[in-house]
Amino acid sequence: MFTLTRYLRSAAFKLPAEVEMSRLRLLETSTLSHTLQKNVFEGIHRNDKVCRFKLPPDLQKIINLEVGREPVKSHQDLIELLRQVCSLSVKTGHPYFINQLFSGMDPYGLAGEIVASSLNSSVYTYEVSPVFTMMELEIFEKMREIVGFPQGKGDGIMSPGGSISNGYGVSVARFHKRPSTKEKGLSGGKPMVMFTSEDAHYSCKKLAVFEGIGTDNVIGVKVDSRGKMKPDELEEQVKKVLSEGKEPFLVIATAGTTVIGAFDPLEPIAEICKKYKLWFHVDAAWGGGALMSTKYRHLMKGIEKADSVTWNPHKLLCAPQQCSVFLCKDENILTDCHAAHASYLFQKDKFYDSQRYDTGDKYIQCGRRADILKFWLMWKAKGTEGFERHIDHVFGLKEQLIAEIKNRGDRFRLLIPDYECTNVSFWYVPVNLRNLETDSTEFQKRIHKVAPKIKEKMMKEGSMMVSYQTLREYPNFFRTVFQSSGLTSEDIKYFLDQFENLGADINL
Amino acid sequence: MFTLTRYLRSAAFKLPAEVEMSRLRLLETSTLSHTLQKNVFEGIHRNDKVCRFKLPPDLQKIINLEVGREPVKSHQDLIELLRQVCSLSVKTGHPYFINQLFSGMDPYGLAGEIVASSLNSSVYTYEVSPVFTMMELEIFEKMREIVGFPQGKGDGIMSPGGSISNGYGVSVARFHKRPSTKEKGLSGGKPMVMFTSEDAHYSCKKLAVFEGIGTDNVIGVKVDSRGKMKPDELEEQVKKVLSEGKEPFLVIATAGTTVIGAFDPLEPIAEICKKYKLWFHVDAAWGGGALMSTKYRHLMKGIEKADSVTWNPHKLLCAPQQCSVFLCKDENILTDCHAAHASYLFQKDKFYDSQRYDTGDKYIQCGRRADILKFWLMWKAKGTEGFERHIDHVFGLKEQLIAEIKNRGDRFRLLIPDYECTNVSFWYVPVNLRNLETDSTEFQKRIHKVAPKIKEKMMKEGSMMVSYQTLREYPNFFRTVFQSSGLTSEDIKYFLDQFENLGADINL
Repeated sequence: MFTLTRYLRSAAFKLPAEVEMSRLRLLETSTLSHTLQKNVFEGIHRNDKVCRFKLPPDLQKIINLEVGREPVKSHQDLIELLRQVCSLSVKTGHPYFINQLFSGMDPYGLAGEIVASSLNSSVYTYEVSPVFTMMELEIFEKMREIVGFPQGKGDGIMSPGGSISNGYGVSVARFHKRPSTKEKGLSGGKPMVMFTSEDAHYSCKKLAVFEGIGTDNVIGVKVDSRGKMKPDELEEQVKKVLSEGKEPFLVIATAGTTVIGAFDPLEPIAEICKKYKLWFHVDAAWGGGALMSTKYRHLMKGIEKADSVTWNPHKLLCAPQQCSVFLCKDENILTDCHAAHASYLFQKDKFYDSQRYDTGDKYIQCGRRADILKFWLMWKAKGTEGFERHIDHVFGLKEQLIAEIKNRGDRFRLLIPDYECTNVSFWYVPVNLRNLETDSTEFQKRIHKVAPKIKEKMMKEGSMMVSYQTLREYPNFFRTVFQSSGLTSEDIKYFLDQFENLGADINL
Repeated sequence: MFTLTRYLRSAAFKLPAEVEMSRLRLLETSTLSHTLQKNVFEGIHRNDKVCRFKLPPDLQKIINLEVGREPVKSHQDLIELLRQVCSLSVKTGHPYFINQLFSGMDPYGLAGEIVASSLNSSVYTYEVSPVFTMMELEIFEKMREIVGFPQGKGDGIMSPGGSISNGYGVSVARFHKRPSTKEKGLSGGKPMVMFTSEDAHYSCKKLAVFEGIGTDNVIGVKVDSRGKMKPDELEEQVKKVLSEGKEPFLVIATAGTTVIGAFDPLEPIAEICKKYKLWFHVDAAWGGGALMSTKYRHLMKGIEKADSVTWNPHKLLCAPQQCSVFLCKDENILTDCHAAHASYLFQKDKFYDSQRYDTGDKYIQCGRRADILKFWLMWKAKGTEGFERHIDHVFGLKEQLIAEIKNRGDRFRLLIPDYECTNVSFWYVPVNLRNLETDSTEFQKRIHKVAPKIKEKMMKEGSMMVSYQTLREYPNFFRTVFQSSGLTSEDIKYFLDQFENLGADINL
């Protein structure tokens, strides 16, 4: 970083009119790097806290967030502000941050992100982003190969997160079923109906609203006791929708549900899609990374039968956010469905094959960051075999956690006996609830209040971060989730010890 | 950066299972920083090239983009790859990159981006992103104040680019007109119709397709000779749509069109919206930055009457990509329209005011990068007065360019006599076309072929990057566009000299 400053301070580059040279020392080695080192990188030490939680009014007292007409007085003030930003932010790279479907700090990923930010590209035309365009084409092909799509065909795009990738699934599926919607929209026609499991990610509903489908037309198919979509229920629902005179067009199966980590049975779902001519999209945003492992890719058996797939390397593969890929078996549908042929960007009379290499018109975004570089660099640095070791390690951690929970007798109860992905859902059971049956009303009512209490203490101590939630009829429970292959067996014990410490005084 | 490596190499942090210590030297001072310095930061020197253009097959011969089972052999290989990535990428921070609606390299912005990447946050809950949540609330309020929205009210979100921000405009406008669309979708009802100018950004159509509206229901209202939407034409079109039994719901006015840089007349458009009860969205993605300037904010007179606004600090204000804000006068509609209440993320029984501070449910994204930090840091470092100096400087450059073009007699012709934003559109006229009238068929036919020829030479020389395009009936012309306040009067002369050099031999 400091090299930029040194360069900007040289005579070679005229500074922006409003940037004062004296302030630029912000970017010197001794300041920015030091701030990052002290407050981010050293902050992911196991002896340090995951967070220093402050309620909003307290936080506002510590850091002056206000912006105004005048700049801060000195570069020291700026650095102090950055220090506060780092210090008050959650350390998502800390080993004890197991709160969300992302975590960890991959050094190659971060290096790629920094280079991409320094180049500040926008990947819409080959002319402006030659390297990143070709890099995307290479990575999409390799990912399609790993999914099992036919070689040398198909298409792909990157998008700002799995929600929007799923939205692309809705978009191409609708266009496939009723191409006239591109011009005519959805009005007038019969309702188009999509299916997903009741445990699917909320983005399916959210994007269905955004895309004019409406929540009533998103059918949440029942799941079995392991959280997997029931194919017979799916077929029943499709028949019901048809009998109501509506138009089924899409099934979104989930490979790794958000909370339980379940993998929907892709092969029978694929059969149903074929039978009823429905687009088959697999939301493998979370579980997709497991395709890299010989040992675990069987969880997604049948994924090669999908028409399209969402796969977020920023989840299980630990790429920095954001890094989400939408893959598609059809070569032309992304362009046919989304292209608007803006004459200022996608000129047809360019001197290179713009039809092939100006990929931006497939997207609903115009300007777009080069999210590909970090993932490509990680892949170059580790190889598929490195990703495989990563996956095998984090799945192994999950097995260790389950064994350790069982070891600890009546202090913990698992929601379901086994888990397919790295998510593990359980209740910590305070002493006075240990004699109650899990399915008794009494237990359900009282255990529901436990997790929020523990979470509050956990946040205030900053000793770890784990999320709690309800699901279907289940009262509040905790869900741990592993993506960082820097975690060890000792960490697993630490997590459960923490729950016992935090829960010791709880008497509800 | 190198501090991360040093830290990871210490005993304090266990490395991810698949990362080999020996490879980590990639991130040492002497390698990554050196690579950035040599190939990015020094690459923005005026004496250096904006790009080293290679056709796809040639590029693939230089850099091995392939990923596979095994990693690269050494960290030297990785660094060499990064060097090639930088060297073959377009230097968008180079002063002679005036090709798109973004450019420049703001040192504060880049510092903010690097800190944000290192923290790898996701701004959906206060719990996970306390600082960035509060920072967003502060910045949105300040931006609404600058727009002129009522104080202490309203709402805002950040989105991955202006296209999706405009999509939010469509989404809330539709919900406002017909709230039942959230559940029912668009099917069955009469077509909902939106209006924008024929020169509006292509994202309006693109998002209308994505959101189920359909291109037939996006009316492109005629513009006047300066590229500004004609309000009387707008009213005619609204009446026509009503008479056809369709439902008008939204007008998107543009404040700074993509090619011409025109500002639609917001006050009369606001009147029409009021009269016909239409949502009034202003796409100020490009022009919005000018609100920071006392001298130029009059261009957007009436913007305070809008219901919502798109404003991209990554354009005219030179924040690194991506940084796009959607502002809204209504306090609740973003939540009412988009919330899906995912129980695993937006728990109601948290120990802080999650209703107020867990802002993620307003979004169609789930995970979301902290795009706010870079902009906040720039604002802290420069103050509004710094942004004002920036805007005044780049608008001044545009005036200088117009004067210089006029100075150069028959070698250049301006598309229209004056320009409101920093875009300037013109033809370079080869010697043998100089005696032809601009509106003669002969001139139009022959000049159309000039720009692609010049552009090809320009790219191959790498001496600058300027885009060409058609617009409405206009044959291919060039458009320069300024965002970097590091540009000087000398640069203006350089640009025109380059056109004369590149065009000298052209004989069409």
